[in-house]
Amino acid sequence: MGKVYLVGAGPGDPELLTVKAVRVLRSADVVLHDSLVSREVLALASPTARLLHVGKRCGKQVLPQEEINALLVYYGGTVGTVVRLKGGDPSIFGRTGEEIEALRSAGLSFEIVPGVTSVLAAAASAGIPLTDRRSTSQVLITTAHRAAELSQAWWDSVRHADATLAIYMPGHDYRRVCQSLEEAGLSSETPCVIVSCASLRGQQICWTDLRHLGTEAPLPAPALLIVGEVARSADGQSQESRLLRQAT
Amino acid sequence: MGKVYLVGAGPGDPELLTVKAVRVLRSADVVLHDSLVSREVLALASPTARLLHVGKRCGKQVLPQEEINALLVYYGGTVGTVVRLKGGDPSIFGRTGEEIEALRSAGLSFEIVPGVTSVLAAAASAGIPLTDRRSTSQVLITTAHRAAELSQAWWDSVRHADATLAIYMPGHDYRRVCQSLEEAGLSSETPCVIVSCASLRGQQICWTDLRHLGTEAPLPAPALLIVGEVARSADGQSQESRLLRQAT
Repeated sequence: MGKVYLVGAGPGDPELLTVKAVRVLRSADVVLHDSLVSREVLALASPTARLLHVGKRCGKQVLPQEEINALLVYYGGTVGTVVRLKGGDPSIFGRTGEEIEALRSAGLSFEIVPGVTSVLAAAASAGIPLTDRRSTSQVLITTAHRAAELSQAWWDSVRHADATLAIYMPGHDYRRVCQSLEEAGLSSETPCVIVSCASLRGQQICWTDLRHLGTEAPLPAPALLIVGEVARSADGQSQESRLLRQAT
Repeated sequence: MGKVYLVGAGPGDPELLTVKAVRVLRSADVVLHDSLVSREVLALASPTARLLHVGKRCGKQVLPQEEINALLVYYGGTVGTVVRLKGGDPSIFGRTGEEIEALRSAGLSFEIVPGVTSVLAAAASAGIPLTDRRSTSQVLITTAHRAAELSQAWWDSVRHADATLAIYMPGHDYRRVCQSLEEAGLSSETPCVIVSCASLRGQQICWTDLRHLGTEAPLPAPALLIVGEVARSADGQSQESRLLRQAT
């Protein structure tokens, strides 16, 4: 019987895998990976490992989740070390709950190896914190879809404790989330930063505010939208970043 | 002129540093580190590096933040590679905003190296996800103090999109947060898990629910409290985990 590791591959730069993730990946007999996992990361696996591209996060699937679960159970029960490699961290928007259930039902042992989830890499690339004891003491990790449902009541209830919104999968049309957040009472001056392909060669950063967010051209996925006072820290970089963006 | 790296040391296990964090740490001439950074992690620094213990997160400070900022600026302006090493990830409850401002004001170049923030390691250790597309699509990273202020309105507004609460620094008395969450309308059946010293030898995990949380004996810091449906996934482990806990 094998062991299955559910491993976070981080945001893309192979140097942002944990030491443990690299060790486990090197020892894997089979690697089932998402589309978001870069070629440079997959190159860390043993040349004899079988690599299977099974799923895309953020939308389209190569295989339905049930088939991924079945493959995990199949390999977990037959080969030595199986790695399920996911972009970012396995616990955030990674369908890890379903895979764990399948493994538990099959009586297979598994271990989660945490990773750097996208918003941490996005904040690092933007050179901003996500909390700041002077202004912001909470971070809501959400999606564009859910953020668009945040009500005035939600926002009123957290305003005195200013929260940063970390919006995963912001999509290609920022207008909806922008409009909803303004309707929920956020000032149109609220700073935002969009980070596309954080830590990768094609990284792009766009500094804006809620007033202008809806008119920004969409940046390529994977992207992350950070909304809140923390994104103001970087005001001084705005011009340089816009130039960088034009240059790409 | 040097360069300053603000580096996430992860939850404690040296294998949960990123490859980049290890590389940067090995090249550091000076390392300014928090109390939460373990000896095993500090051992990764070059034997010739100067190690300075400057600050404790979660409460007591060795040095006031202004003095840490001044030291960063001093070393950043005089030595080659300076590493500011923080438990978890620099952007979450790490006072990174203040340090960045000091470095920017001094005209020093800096880079943030992201790390595995505590809740990701806690979820991995507990074997649970933080989101699950079948139930939970948001995660609120907060503190016990702030969680106690969440209103009924907040909870009503997110209920249809079930949110996981990731409560950093839950302290030694869980009753207040417990009582506030019940007052805000959370069911007393809501599952919770407390993970103490995630990824470290002394790791302890306590599975409970809101009804019983207030009577649980406090686990040693650093600890993390996860509240929400995702903590129910682990029901099957309850007995085993309680035994594990007694054995420590």
